[in-house]
Amino acid sequence: MINGLILTPMKVIDVVGDSVLRAMSIGNVGYNGFGEAYFSTVKHNTIRGWKKHKEMTLNIVVPVGVIRFVVYDDRKNSSTFGSFQEFILSKDNYNRITIPPNVWVGFQGVGSEINLLLNIANIPHNDTEVDHAPLKSFGYDWI
Amino acid sequence: MINGLILTPMKVIDVVGDSVLRAMSIGNVGYNGFGEAYFSTVKHNTIRGWKKHKEMTLNIVVPVGVIRFVVYDDRKNSSTFGSFQEFILSKDNYNRITIPPNVWVGFQGVGSEINLLLNIANIPHNDTEVDHAPLKSFGYDWI
Repeated sequence: MINGLILTPMKVIDVVGDSVLRAMSIGNVGYNGFGEAYFSTVKHNTIRGWKKHKEMTLNIVVPVGVIRFVVYDDRKNSSTFGSFQEFILSKDNYNRITIPPNVWVGFQGVGSEINLLLNIANIPHNDTEVDHAPLKSFGYDWI
Repeated sequence: MINGLILTPMKVIDVVGDSVLRAMSIGNVGYNGFGEAYFSTVKHNTIRGWKKHKEMTLNIVVPVGVIRFVVYDDRKNSSTFGSFQEFILSKDNYNRITIPPNVWVGFQGVGSEINLLLNIANIPHNDTEVDHAPLKSFGYDWI
């Protein structure tokens, strides 16, 4: 596992045919304070990335659809320097990923209908703490 | 408007055919601290209620589907005592409702597919601070 990444299995509670899905609670592993919560949708096969947050810790769950995440570690002093890690999240595989600052992240819509992620971030959105790199960077084959 | 209820229009940001939907940021109107974030799904026509939280402030958005919420105020000292208020939330009518403690809340799935709400609550879930009443209470006609 890339240093600082945490994959946490999350509870889906059945409620007479419907569900309650926990996303984050204070005291949970990976919780690093609350700054902002936002959703992103991503269409089937659309890829977004690469982005690197310099300050934000991301805590991501996928309650609708299926989304593939790839994390790339180019932190010079990391024992997992140069590693890629892939996760596929969905309601059926309901896990939360905690992504520390200073690693690269990309994601791709896998489900054919709505793919929705929630990020519970420790700081509010701020463009100045985000680096961008073209999708073809790092030699990763997204196809 | 029922005392303490806040309806806040929220931003949907277009991202090449997809969307970013803000849910809550520290400093936003209605933000009352972070305790827990969870999703509930509710099938078409299913009704959940009534519930009254004695301590929790609810902050609810609906990023997928359409959900109808009804709030009933039976707080003795409230200037809106005895009032009902109805909201229909969806991505196309993307608002956040802030529901203070000590009012009754029920909700119903309106969309024919997935109806999903996110609640960003100021305290973690705790059964002991929740009162329940049968759907037929308060003389409200849910049909």
